[in-house]
Amino acid sequence: MSANPTLKPAVSVIGLGMMGTALAAAFLKTGHQVTVWNRSHSKTGPLAAQGAAPADTAADAVAASPLVVVCLSTYDTVRAVLEPLSGQLTGKTVANLTNGTPEQARDLAAWAAKEGAAYLDGGIMAVPQMIAGPHAYVLYSGPQGVFDAHRETFAALGGTKYVGEDTGLASLYDLALLTGMYGMFAGVLQAYALIGTEAITATEFSELLVPWVGAMLASAPAMAAAIDSGQHLTDVSSLAVNQAAFPNLLSTFAAQGVSGELFAPVQGLLDRAIAEGHAADGLSRLADLLRTAPAGPPDAALAV
Amino acid sequence: MSANPTLKPAVSVIGLGMMGTALAAAFLKTGHQVTVWNRSHSKTGPLAAQGAAPADTAADAVAASPLVVVCLSTYDTVRAVLEPLSGQLTGKTVANLTNGTPEQARDLAAWAAKEGAAYLDGGIMAVPQMIAGPHAYVLYSGPQGVFDAHRETFAALGGTKYVGEDTGLASLYDLALLTGMYGMFAGVLQAYALIGTEAITATEFSELLVPWVGAMLASAPAMAAAIDSGQHLTDVSSLAVNQAAFPNLLSTFAAQGVSGELFAPVQGLLDRAIAEGHAADGLSRLADLLRTAPAGPPDAALAV
Repeated sequence: MSANPTLKPAVSVIGLGMMGTALAAAFLKTGHQVTVWNRSHSKTGPLAAQGAAPADTAADAVAASPLVVVCLSTYDTVRAVLEPLSGQLTGKTVANLTNGTPEQARDLAAWAAKEGAAYLDGGIMAVPQMIAGPHAYVLYSGPQGVFDAHRETFAALGGTKYVGEDTGLASLYDLALLTGMYGMFAGVLQAYALIGTEAITATEFSELLVPWVGAMLASAPAMAAAIDSGQHLTDVSSLAVNQAAFPNLLSTFAAQGVSGELFAPVQGLLDRAIAEGHAADGLSRLADLLRTAPAGPPDAALAV
Repeated sequence: MSANPTLKPAVSVIGLGMMGTALAAAFLKTGHQVTVWNRSHSKTGPLAAQGAAPADTAADAVAASPLVVVCLSTYDTVRAVLEPLSGQLTGKTVANLTNGTPEQARDLAAWAAKEGAAYLDGGIMAVPQMIAGPHAYVLYSGPQGVFDAHRETFAALGGTKYVGEDTGLASLYDLALLTGMYGMFAGVLQAYALIGTEAITATEFSELLVPWVGAMLASAPAMAAAIDSGQHLTDVSSLAVNQAAFPNLLSTFAAQGVSGELFAPVQGLLDRAIAEGHAADGLSRLADLLRTAPAGPPDAALAV
């Protein structure tokens, strides 16, 4: 709802690695006036050619736009860039899309509040090549009103998922999604390593592996329902059955010359689940066992 | 190509746990004459009601049909049942669908050969409830001619995937597919544990997690191509980027009270990959690092 409906809000982008460059290009393509800054100035060249205004300093970039999108390698770098600008952020909105932890996001939000800046934290669920494409989205957390004010601008990057007022939530969602991804990749890569010990190509095997893992992934919502209800009993695949079968995997890794380092801890967790009396439960029970904090369910206190 | 095209070959099923019962029921439904045996005779009741002939002894079950399908809990149990039948298996085909290792399958095939029996090993890629349904399939390995002779009978159980003459291959494929599944489940369950430390239900989170992991799974064939070609360089997500980001996961697990036991080894593997000079490679390189046998690629000798 700007005064001139044809004029989109100005955006400054700080940090022009592969991801920051992709973000700035996406804002440019949707008609935003974009100011860019990077510690190494040469990174601004390609974006200037697309219509961006290169800023000489981070202070100039912040001054140029009401919305400052930050995408750097770490929160330490973010602080190294922003803290010297103390006093110059008043009234600005900082949307920090740098990878980090919930704690880092909450700490930076507290610093921004003292500076009189609105702060949103974000988690980009895409690689740079996907930005602005149909499958990219960004998670946002922080004050709902601040998010709403910039939602249309953010839409230039892909989907927008607002996950809550707690500034740390975007990072928590981001890290939890990456956790799922890393587990899946660990399984896929271990499977490729195992099958490769015989004269079977990974490509040939992927034609079975991808549909199989995809089919098993379809049971994840049922696992979620079990976790949410605390009803872990199953008539499909009990922890007892899984615990008994798992040594076949580990012994075959050893026999075929594949490291078991990524999978030995799964056996340990299965063994603990049985020892704690969960033999008839499904795999969903393991999510409870992984909770070690006092706030977790009663038996989580035993999980180390 | 039986003499009477309307008469399907007789099948005996040894072992009537949940899976063996599902197999026997599927053979019955497709019109086979089915003889069943189980150590605990009471398990034969429901199948007898569906038309199966209960055998009093395993020897009677073997004598009743040219094809003997075995589905027991372990190979030790298979041997305990079959070895006393020495001399009675001549001319029979044993299709052993019990879970086990490639080595166990090869050993049992050697024993069967001495007995004058044809032997196929199988891996069932389904839970009992899925048998005969559109998504179930069974992997088979052993002599191609033996498989071909019984392919139509096996089709009663679901899809048939013949993977090679080496008897151990069905088990290797089976275990490699399970490896991919367990990795994915480890990731999903760890993600549920993490998100559950805040007031977010697993069900709500699964709506983001399942499509995300599914989208990332779509990159598995590209990883396979990298592994097969040995060309691991990437412009998407380098090992250096992953190694630098991974401590955010581990520190957040700790901060939120979730065990890092399943994921700490991934950091170790990423660190080793960087130490060995693979910083610019993609995650696909990790499959090579997991190969520890002398037969692996040159740098695998360093991986422990």
